[in-house]
Amino acid sequence: MTITPPALSVFEALESEVRSYCRGWPAVFDRAQGSHMYDEDGHTYLDFFAGAGSLNYGHNNPVLKRALIDYIERDGVTHGLDMSTTAKRAFLESFQNNILRPRDLPYKVMFPGPTGTNAVEAALKLARKVKGRESIVSFTNAFHGMSLGSLAVTGNAFKRAGAGIPLVHGTPMPFDNYFDGAVEDFLWFERLLEDQGSGLNKPAAVIVETVQGEGGINVARAEWLRALSELCERQDMLLIVDDIQMGCGRTGAFFSFEEAGITPDIVTVSKSISGYGMPLALTLFKPELDIWEPGEHNGTFRGNNPAFVTAAATLDTYWADGQMEKQTLARGEQVEQGLRAICDENSGISHRGRGLVWGMEFEDKPRASAVCKRAFELGLLVETSGPESEVVKLLPALTMTPEELDEGLRILARAVRETA
Amino acid sequence: MTITPPALSVFEALESEVRSYCRGWPAVFDRAQGSHMYDEDGHTYLDFFAGAGSLNYGHNNPVLKRALIDYIERDGVTHGLDMSTTAKRAFLESFQNNILRPRDLPYKVMFPGPTGTNAVEAALKLARKVKGRESIVSFTNAFHGMSLGSLAVTGNAFKRAGAGIPLVHGTPMPFDNYFDGAVEDFLWFERLLEDQGSGLNKPAAVIVETVQGEGGINVARAEWLRALSELCERQDMLLIVDDIQMGCGRTGAFFSFEEAGITPDIVTVSKSISGYGMPLALTLFKPELDIWEPGEHNGTFRGNNPAFVTAAATLDTYWADGQMEKQTLARGEQVEQGLRAICDENSGISHRGRGLVWGMEFEDKPRASAVCKRAFELGLLVETSGPESEVVKLLPALTMTPEELDEGLRILARAVRETA
Amino acid sequence: MTITPPALSVFEALESEVRSYCRGWPAVFDRAQGSHMYDEDGHTYLDFFAGAGSLNYGHNNPVLKRALIDYIERDGVTHGLDMSTTAKRAFLESFQNNILRPRDLPYKVMFPGPTGTNAVEAALKLARKVKGRESIVSFTNAFHGMSLGSLAVTGNAFKRAGAGIPLVHGTPMPFDNYFDGAVEDFLWFERLLEDQGSGLNKPAAVIVETVQGEGGINVARAEWLRALSELCERQDMLLIVDDIQMGCGRTGAFFSFEEAGITPDIVTVSKSISGYGMPLALTLFKPELDIWEPGEHNGTFRGNNPAFVTAAATLDTYWADGQMEKQTLARGEQVEQGLRAICDENSGISHRGRGLVWGMEFEDKPRASAVCKRAFELGLLVETSGPESEVVKLLPALTMTPEELDEGLRILARAVRETA
Amino acid sequence: MTITPPALSVFEALESEVRSYCRGWPAVFDRAQGSHMYDEDGHTYLDFFAGAGSLNYGHNNPVLKRALIDYIERDGVTHGLDMSTTAKRAFLESFQNNILRPRDLPYKVMFPGPTGTNAVEAALKLARKVKGRESIVSFTNAFHGMSLGSLAVTGNAFKRAGAGIPLVHGTPMPFDNYFDGAVEDFLWFERLLEDQGSGLNKPAAVIVETVQGEGGINVARAEWLRALSELCERQDMLLIVDDIQMGCGRTGAFFSFEEAGITPDIVTVSKSISGYGMPLALTLFKPELDIWEPGEHNGTFRGNNPAFVTAAATLDTYWADGQMEKQTLARGEQVEQGLRAICDENSGISHRGRGLVWGMEFEDKPRASAVCKRAFELGLLVETSGPESEVVKLLPALTMTPEELDEGLRILARAVRETA
Repeated sequence: MTITPPALSVFEALESEVRSYCRGWPAVFDRAQGSHMYDEDGHTYLDFFAGAGSLNYGHNNPVLKRALIDYIERDGVTHGLDMSTTAKRAFLESFQNNILRPRDLPYKVMFPGPTGTNAVEAALKLARKVKGRESIVSFTNAFHGMSLGSLAVTGNAFKRAGAGIPLVHGTPMPFDNYFDGAVEDFLWFERLLEDQGSGLNKPAAVIVETVQGEGGINVARAEWLRALSELCERQDMLLIVDDIQMGCGRTGAFFSFEEAGITPDIVTVSKSISGYGMPLALTLFKPELDIWEPGEHNGTFRGNNPAFVTAAATLDTYWADGQMEKQTLARGEQVEQGLRAICDENSGISHRGRGLVWGMEFEDKPRASAVCKRAFELGLLVETSGPESEVVKLLPALTMTPEELDEGLRILARAVRETA
Repeated sequence: MTITPPALSVFEALESEVRSYCRGWPAVFDRAQGSHMYDEDGHTYLDFFAGAGSLNYGHNNPVLKRALIDYIERDGVTHGLDMSTTAKRAFLESFQNNILRPRDLPYKVMFPGPTGTNAVEAALKLARKVKGRESIVSFTNAFHGMSLGSLAVTGNAFKRAGAGIPLVHGTPMPFDNYFDGAVEDFLWFERLLEDQGSGLNKPAAVIVETVQGEGGINVARAEWLRALSELCERQDMLLIVDDIQMGCGRTGAFFSFEEAGITPDIVTVSKSISGYGMPLALTLFKPELDIWEPGEHNGTFRGNNPAFVTAAATLDTYWADGQMEKQTLARGEQVEQGLRAICDENSGISHRGRGLVWGMEFEDKPRASAVCKRAFELGLLVETSGPESEVVKLLPALTMTPEELDEGLRILARAVRETA
Repeated sequence: MTITPPALSVFEALESEVRSYCRGWPAVFDRAQGSHMYDEDGHTYLDFFAGAGSLNYGHNNPVLKRALIDYIERDGVTHGLDMSTTAKRAFLESFQNNILRPRDLPYKVMFPGPTGTNAVEAALKLARKVKGRESIVSFTNAFHGMSLGSLAVTGNAFKRAGAGIPLVHGTPMPFDNYFDGAVEDFLWFERLLEDQGSGLNKPAAVIVETVQGEGGINVARAEWLRALSELCERQDMLLIVDDIQMGCGRTGAFFSFEEAGITPDIVTVSKSISGYGMPLALTLFKPELDIWEPGEHNGTFRGNNPAFVTAAATLDTYWADGQMEKQTLARGEQVEQGLRAICDENSGISHRGRGLVWGMEFEDKPRASAVCKRAFELGLLVETSGPESEVVKLLPALTMTPEELDEGLRILARAVRETA
Repeated sequence: MTITPPALSVFEALESEVRSYCRGWPAVFDRAQGSHMYDEDGHTYLDFFAGAGSLNYGHNNPVLKRALIDYIERDGVTHGLDMSTTAKRAFLESFQNNILRPRDLPYKVMFPGPTGTNAVEAALKLARKVKGRESIVSFTNAFHGMSLGSLAVTGNAFKRAGAGIPLVHGTPMPFDNYFDGAVEDFLWFERLLEDQGSGLNKPAAVIVETVQGEGGINVARAEWLRALSELCERQDMLLIVDDIQMGCGRTGAFFSFEEAGITPDIVTVSKSISGYGMPLALTLFKPELDIWEPGEHNGTFRGNNPAFVTAAATLDTYWADGQMEKQTLARGEQVEQGLRAICDENSGISHRGRGLVWGMEFEDKPRASAVCKRAFELGLLVETSGPESEVVKLLPALTMTPEELDEGLRILARAVRETA
């Protein structure tokens, strides 16, 4: 496939230098369907990125599209602040029936604003309010968002520097396997908590991703998560699972923490919750934590009703039974086989992942970017992650067909070969 | 009109106590069109709140609706991160042609995430980065958002307390007319800046609303804004105008600061920019401030393409000429007449506003809430604002007809009478 | 008098660039007695600075010297941590009998470490602990010390910049007469406190100097102090008077706030409390505030017993009756006459002060430094203060004779004339 | 020995509840000589605490006493701000000749105020100013002082809580042997520094005690200190050694870091520097770090001239050759033998130390306090340290005779036996 460099003039002239994905993928995208995106020049791309995990059901999923257009056509409420609406009720009922009740999860639902960072900000505020303490523990290579509260618990030094103020009230701890097993889990963390002379400000909460997406596809083991959950209970800290990228079925189960058998105190959900790529976010928490005063946290776009409509449709369509989970795990095995083959054929690459989130780490770090660049030229959208962009990250839609997965893996294998 | 209390069970059982508008308006809203909302029990409400200023063109505006459905039908990209897309280009071109170029505004456009608080966070980060200073000056009764960066420059003590950490790096200064003319404008602020012993950390920037919406419809005079702008220039501070609620034509001109003839260094825009009530936000700044590194600030929903589509449609439809501005100013006069009549008939009430944002302040503060409650029973949606909810706030859609405005004002007058 | 530039080599070679007084007074001082200092080259200087107010009873006061040498000779405890010692008891009893009881002051006494900034740090910690709030209000041109807690409530921008971190949790308010009467006292402060939307973090305490020494000899009126005290009570904030420089009789009465008839919640005392120029400091507070846990604040040199000995001697010698206060007020009148004469003879100078602390402000700001330089050449030690070093500051020992005062004033008048 | 409870009334009535040593040692001390203290009731105490390390040369050392009285008698300058004085010059020259030059140490000398916490505050300010970064790394169980800057790098949770504000800009790392060798030295710290995604704010400096006195007599190995020094150099962080308690010969050499062969960038010295128990402190730093502006950090009691006099006398008397160091090491061996015998005789006790600082840790933690209490009854002053006061801490004067040491060790052994 040959790609003509598109005329990007208005983007270059008018859009801030902060723009980023458009630089690695120099095309003007026009349409998208399922796992394919189409640019203005008629090129087709197979999408292994899925809106950074926001499009678990593919682009413009027809079932959701139908529900969405119907809703718009009939003049359903679009913008609802936090008013009660028919669409919100349908979503809440579907969420309760399909997600919370079958999993015996007791959560209250908060709509904190329609983006992941809103959900994290609300979670941190609530945890501090409940515990009366300021400090939050996060993990190495965590990513939780760009507003100041979330950024303070995000690991990336480059993004932290953007704050323009010293980021405080957060302390990083080693994520699972940070020392390749050389140090006992939570040795440092628990010792700091127990030692009255340690100098650690006692945390209100711990915030963790079960699989660190931006951080390089670092997969926490179920036993590590269980131990963390027990540590939090033992030490009177709340456990916040940030399931923004790994929730909504990405790892198989609806919530990524289900496999570990834990019940976090607070859970943040966003990205794929609307299903259609529209902004929506939830902060879930145990009912005894619901000490918010009415309006103490607010926001204009908390009630994005078209997103409620598509969200309810995804839950009713894909989460009424356990099929989606099984399918994702099966597709995950397929991806793993493909990656294992690539790693076997090439030296200096390792792979890891869970469900349908996978990473290939390159010892020769810049090669990861070269692979993505070559893959783009070959019609595949993949991105890097990790602190030095040394990991190629795979986030295909959960609805991607086995054939599409195979096609993508073939292109990836070729891109790896051609960047050797 | 009689209203049966709706069954709110799932909201009460499942949604967090933080919910708020649904308490004052105990109905389940189903559909909306123009300036009317319809609940499930068949009641109709005239909307003088317009999504807190997010629905300047009314609910489900037919022109935008057509463009939106067309886009969805043809599988236009929905979720685009910050990729270049056809829809984004159309929006950028329309924004340049209809808004920036005619006003000779040199701004670069950043998509900081789709909510107002994202736009403010990005503005504050950029200002601090540019100036290398942490401190920001805000004004009494300011409202800028709920994430930690924005909350630190927001005045409301109740919302600030929700942070759970001490909010620092911000200092409040008196908004225009805070002392009813008894103190010279900027006397305190400039003295603090000039006195090397004042103890004020030199600010990177000043953030201001031209009309404080949440703060109680406090209208800054054009000369005050000009003096502030000159002060900022003289003292090497950036001027940030938060035009999230007052922009997009609410005060007449597209930007609320146009009347004052100033050019802020940074402008935040959200709420009505998509026109259809969908999440979208912009941070605009002078090109010399565009020192962002690629990806230094990011976010999943920066590229909400359906919102680009409706946004471009609003600009092409309503802002290609000066008609909208003229109409808004005319309708504003109509509202003022109505309010003046109410104030004349009743003692203890004063009114103020600009364009189509107006407030009625009640000396007997709780009466403002009583008026809103009564208005709701009479089929009118209005809300209070101000530090003690002492102001009834009018934010009708800019597209509201003169007849609808009159109807609303009549209901309001009745509600005022009936709460005397 | 001719002064040969002394050999300063070891100071220049070994001592940090941070040294400061030695630059303006380029002599090596060897001995001192009463109000005179003697350098190694045989020059004599009349001291109008008195150790920045630490030598209210003159250098090496013979009464104190005798007590001190006796104590050392008999091997009295020198270093006592916070152990009970005979010397500490004698001091406490003398302080109670001569100072607290006659003034009906109920204070508990804390030894927070032997310097002023230790006393301020302890005061701020206690106020925050008592009120459970972080914020402290200070005043324009305040000076409270160089450690981080004290520095955050100090006004001087140059000194604040030395912190190397953003100084937070403090907010400046206008000191008395900051606007030359153009703005009603506490208008801004009280409005901020009462307005729930002001954005001011509610302060735990207010810290104030009755006369700002470093800030330029700014004298608060008694009625302003009373109004401040009432404001604090009304608004549930503690009132801290930093009497480090103005206490111990500098303004006439032992405490500088006595004239105003107020009883601050917390008082800091240092500088002249030992009387002999040895490090000692007290933090005094109302007994109901004494919620410290044993050892919660500590410090190695809290029990500087030789300083207790001289301190008790000053109290017994000078404060058993009201003579000292009367004498100081009389000497203050003498100084004022002298200064008035200088101001009458020269244009562009104004004077202000109270008791034996006085300042001459020069419209031509650099002239204040020139005057001090010329005075030094003429054998008089005086220093500048104020944010731009525009004020010549007079702090003669309280024990200075009328003749010495006249001599100093004559030199000062000559220095003023010769710098015209 | 029988001790009658003394009348403590004025202390109890007037002194703040924060007082602490006086509670464990309920006597009123009157005189002191060498290693003995005498109370008002005629009891004699052997002092194994030495003013928490401030009296390395014993109480009221006759050599220093002579110099001090001579100075006072001849009216030498007592209070000198930071003026050049004869006494200061003598001290600087002695410090250069006896301490800096023989050790080839290039330091500039700053007088930051006369207490340890002043010295630490100045060190932290300078490090931040030099590096332009806010963050400081300290170690578990560190103790650096009570003012806000120092407290933020102090480990003890009880003392930290006294701050009344969240203590930020500091991060604790594990001190040497924190995990009993189970974790490689600096594994966590260096990984955090190298990982661009770790979330650690890059530190300006590391502050460390070579032996943690308050923290429980934790002795860092020389190779650990060397590795730390190399880490700091490699990672562009300044190394601050807080030698306030361990300097001035406590561990043998004048500076405690000499044994490790490192040259810290900044060193803080206080406690025993004056030798006579009078307040004095130094901040030493490499000349290239001396970027202070004149007066940027100041303080009233920086020039405590009597302390300069005794300080110079200690250096000339004890540090002109290597005898003091040899003697201290020999006495240290004597102490170790005594402690080893105690540990051999009793189970559940371990000992550790260096030079003349030693600790005995009790598995049965409250027993350490019981031992100190019993020792007091038997006429020996010893104190506990450690996060749970589980360590009996020995800090005898360096000038204590072998016979006195033996006597003290015998009393200690008896106290241990009698608390079994």
